[in-house]
Amino acid sequence: MISKSVIKHVRALHLKKFREETGFFVVEGPKIIFELLRSKGWRVTNIYALPSWLPPAGIALPEITFVSEKELDQLSALKHPNKVLAVVEIPDIIQRKCDPPNSGLFLLLDHIQDPGNLGTIIRIADWFGLAGIFCSNDTVDCFNSKVVQASMGSIFRVPVVYCSLSDLLIKNAEGPKLPVFGTQLDGQSIYKADIHTDAFIIMSNEGRGLNPVLKPFVNKGLLIPSKSNGNDSAESLNVAVATGIVCAEFARKMP
Amino acid sequence: MISKSVIKHVRALHLKKFREETGFFVVEGPKIIFELLRSKGWRVTNIYALPSWLPPAGIALPEITFVSEKELDQLSALKHPNKVLAVVEIPDIIQRKCDPPNSGLFLLLDHIQDPGNLGTIIRIADWFGLAGIFCSNDTVDCFNSKVVQASMGSIFRVPVVYCSLSDLLIKNAEGPKLPVFGTQLDGQSIYKADIHTDAFIIMSNEGRGLNPVLKPFVNKGLLIPSKSNGNDSAESLNVAVATGIVCAEFARKMP
Repeated sequence: MISKSVIKHVRALHLKKFREETGFFVVEGPKIIFELLRSKGWRVTNIYALPSWLPPAGIALPEITFVSEKELDQLSALKHPNKVLAVVEIPDIIQRKCDPPNSGLFLLLDHIQDPGNLGTIIRIADWFGLAGIFCSNDTVDCFNSKVVQASMGSIFRVPVVYCSLSDLLIKNAEGPKLPVFGTQLDGQSIYKADIHTDAFIIMSNEGRGLNPVLKPFVNKGLLIPSKSNGNDSAESLNVAVATGIVCAEFARKMP
Repeated sequence: MISKSVIKHVRALHLKKFREETGFFVVEGPKIIFELLRSKGWRVTNIYALPSWLPPAGIALPEITFVSEKELDQLSALKHPNKVLAVVEIPDIIQRKCDPPNSGLFLLLDHIQDPGNLGTIIRIADWFGLAGIFCSNDTVDCFNSKVVQASMGSIFRVPVVYCSLSDLLIKNAEGPKLPVFGTQLDGQSIYKADIHTDAFIIMSNEGRGLNPVLKPFVNKGLLIPSKSNGNDSAESLNVAVATGIVCAEFARKMP
């Protein structure tokens, strides 16, 4: 039996406000919890599991509290809770400061609101070995449970920082001067662009396009050319898909 | 006021069974309904709209039934109904037959179950001007409301056919013999592969990988190389992202 106060505490973590107040977030499901437990630098404070959950072998585990299906349902944000749920400390790495790095390939995500898209983008960054992601402060919280789910565990491997992207780019212009790429409708075809693999790539909300505040910092605009016929075509690609295509093009040039 | 039987009829169309029985599906929201109305070959039988909906100018409209917010909520499958909802006839083009085409670039989707992924893939096919999509019979129905939403209107421009993919590939082997590409872990890097732009590209469910039943038909396996370090990496990309990257690579070679 778990107490009402535990249920209240865990449920509250499904809201950003309480995650920020307490410094904890929730991870659900055997697959993602396996990824969590095998990743370094994450402190798991509690695991709540059905007796049928098989903990991964050969990995040190925190204390496990066994719960009934009804209790797991009360703790979970999922429609169909999946055997196990963990409470995890938000590490210090997630700071709201923005020191521009000297090298590496980074995504700058501007106003990405859909949690599924952010999670999918984190997974892309992991696949292509990017150095990290800077998110604008109005991008959805990366510890939102839907982001964590969609990242398929990549959230535990890719550094994500929230900050003002324009502050970051101002400091970069003074300091390391990494080249800044941005996807925009008047950009150069990604198939022909001169690409640097130490760089920032700005990806924007599909509906809004490249933020005018960030545009002055862009050294090179990039475009994924459409092959549709005339007016009868898709207006845009999904932002996670566009990020995947752009990252694959940068990865082609990686040493 | 709309009658209870209208509400019952429209709501039933959110279920695949009733879409198949009646031959109609539902489209929601001003943006996607604009795409619907400007596309050819779609018969809109009813439009239910709030008085605040502004019909697009210069487009012939079917009869509009004005409804209250409460009534729209009763008709809608969305959490937050968006001003307008249309009932549309499923066209004859969506047949469960599988004649292999002689030319063009086609996606073959095997067991894609997530509606968001299918809708996003239809949008990709539209962007890159693909000739059409063949879906396995166990792929999610393209007239599922979440698929229609995620396609952002591309569903009205990209031909989608449901059939047995192995039957299609057997006939293709006898007939037009379009080359068959498949994404698989032992494939050749997409950056180096010899690509044909009249071809089939098989995209598979991420969890299951390339279906063993389809594998014998694949002429060339393709791989999106990961740049992650060692074991600590993402296991796979989201299937819509992988489709976007593969299609962008084929589009590069398009005339």
